[in-house]
Amino acid sequence: MGNQVARSKAGIRDVAKHAGVSVTTVSHVLNETPHTRVKEETVDRVRAAAEELGYRPNRLARGLRTHASEMIGLVAEEIAATPHAGRIILGAQKRADADGLALAIINSDLQREPTVPPRSVHAFLDRQVDGIVYATVYHDEVVVPPALQGIPAVLIGARDRDERLPSVLPDERTGAADVVGMLVEYGHRSIAFIDSAEDIPATRGRVRGYRDGMEAVGFSPDARIVAGTPDAAGGYRAAAQLLDQHDPPTALFCFDDRMAMGAYRAAAERGLRIPEDVSVVGFDDQDPLPTSMHPTLTTVALPHYEMGEWAVATLTARIRAGSPGDEPAMSCLLPCPVVVRESVAAPARR
Amino acid sequence: MGNQVARSKAGIRDVAKHAGVSVTTVSHVLNETPHTRVKEETVDRVRAAAEELGYRPNRLARGLRTHASEMIGLVAEEIAATPHAGRIILGAQKRADADGLALAIINSDLQREPTVPPRSVHAFLDRQVDGIVYATVYHDEVVVPPALQGIPAVLIGARDRDERLPSVLPDERTGAADVVGMLVEYGHRSIAFIDSAEDIPATRGRVRGYRDGMEAVGFSPDARIVAGTPDAAGGYRAAAQLLDQHDPPTALFCFDDRMAMGAYRAAAERGLRIPEDVSVVGFDDQDPLPTSMHPTLTTVALPHYEMGEWAVATLTARIRAGSPGDEPAMSCLLPCPVVVRESVAAPARR
Repeated sequence: MGNQVARSKAGIRDVAKHAGVSVTTVSHVLNETPHTRVKEETVDRVRAAAEELGYRPNRLARGLRTHASEMIGLVAEEIAATPHAGRIILGAQKRADADGLALAIINSDLQREPTVPPRSVHAFLDRQVDGIVYATVYHDEVVVPPALQGIPAVLIGARDRDERLPSVLPDERTGAADVVGMLVEYGHRSIAFIDSAEDIPATRGRVRGYRDGMEAVGFSPDARIVAGTPDAAGGYRAAAQLLDQHDPPTALFCFDDRMAMGAYRAAAERGLRIPEDVSVVGFDDQDPLPTSMHPTLTTVALPHYEMGEWAVATLTARIRAGSPGDEPAMSCLLPCPVVVRESVAAPARR
Repeated sequence: MGNQVARSKAGIRDVAKHAGVSVTTVSHVLNETPHTRVKEETVDRVRAAAEELGYRPNRLARGLRTHASEMIGLVAEEIAATPHAGRIILGAQKRADADGLALAIINSDLQREPTVPPRSVHAFLDRQVDGIVYATVYHDEVVVPPALQGIPAVLIGARDRDERLPSVLPDERTGAADVVGMLVEYGHRSIAFIDSAEDIPATRGRVRGYRDGMEAVGFSPDARIVAGTPDAAGGYRAAAQLLDQHDPPTALFCFDDRMAMGAYRAAAERGLRIPEDVSVVGFDDQDPLPTSMHPTLTTVALPHYEMGEWAVATLTARIRAGSPGDEPAMSCLLPCPVVVRESVAAPARR
């Protein structure tokens, strides 16, 4: 109980007295003031005293002095609608830890409310976070919201239309082309794409990559594209349509894992075994779907963890360089690897 | 471009000049200083000037004066491992907005690192957040980490072992008993529970609720409990074992939705239709599983959104009352509603 009281009451003077040093020395040690020299033994003594008394320097005051909060913000659009947000957060946090920065996360949709961002975003900026990572989902390009202008910022998932901010995106197009390449190597010659009927710019790379892959081996892609709602029911209907053709495809490449789940059902109802009679591939690697399906689903992973890491590393570099975003922006594409599981095999008929 | 320059340079003096008022008046208006009177017309003029010049008061300085940051923190344990964290965040945010507080989120596992919480948590506390919501997943009771002592805090998902902090938990036990009650009403007399072999304290209520429900109608529960790994493969094996008994159950109540997915496969392999030949119920309502399954899965939802709202409302009340957590703590159980979809029907044989 005595400890409890000390914890909430101890000030810098108590620490100085306890360690037998001046208040200035305590301040230098605990704030790690650059270019000051304190003996190592003294540093240890001050830190031990502060620890014992439960004292920490007031970072609000420190932020005012140094104009650096040592905190960065991750503004994530529609966290609840994004099954992968957790991976972005973990990647960003790992890199922030390594760079000595604290990471705070705000859930906000700045594209929907570009001029009046919510209180949380303002609270962040008003506290002078050193920089912002802004993660979006449904756009391939964004106009950077006014709230984010004037401080270092990096985009995840979308390019800056004004080409001022660096951005990192998943290379869905190459990932999709790689799937076609893999299926061709297995011997497939009739590969259909089950596309999403919802046009989300950020995901257009998937059908483009399918076309790239098909054209690269001299196949005509367009006859084998069927669209449906991006869920199990849409995948079921599209797969049923394809499998009932007089010359059905031997492989179904689906826009996402949910559609692949519907394709499984369409195959099962027709007595077709996966992968012996028809191969199926998904996209997203959306936990827990691919490993819950039987057979487990071969799919394409999105590099969310890696995008989080890249964004914070790039942001840190910009903060340290003191450049708020006036140099030409980089845009980085990170690979989407194919995750091989059980749903692909050589076709029985060629 | 002119606007851009003004945005990053404007200070309180510029706003005062632009609005034709004193610096003190600008400060009173923009900081909403209590107990000061400024004419409404002047308030409008100051706000317009600040808006036009892109000026906002420095909340760091304001926090130092008022000792209130108007920001609360949500420390969420293992966001990446928690599919439902997004719903907690949305509920907390909605309530924080209503209460005029900004919400920042930190991903941290304070139970694993109780004495040396990561930099992010310290950064939060050092910035004097007004309070903390601490959300955990794998415990039914926690010892409150030292880092959270001394400021108002509320727990989500676990009780405070020392009974000092309020907490909100899902009433999984009643939710599970409700499932048994529903199945009995449909006419089921042979209801099995497919349990998780992983003992996570927070989820023990599920099997307890199953027992409650069975005992309430005079059935002996224990003969019909089979455990497996909490995934599709574990659910498959447990369901196969149950369905191959000489007197198989007519309903399978599964520990979670992933196990229910495995139960679907075991039923399909035996030519059993769901729900005509066997009813299946899950737990979690883990998007996108239940709506991707065919038939769609009847399951039990966890009240994550509501827990987020409750926690922030309770935290706000404690902050406003100036009580850091010394009064007797409340612990609140929120209902887990059964979400009725297609996987339950009356049994063919009774």
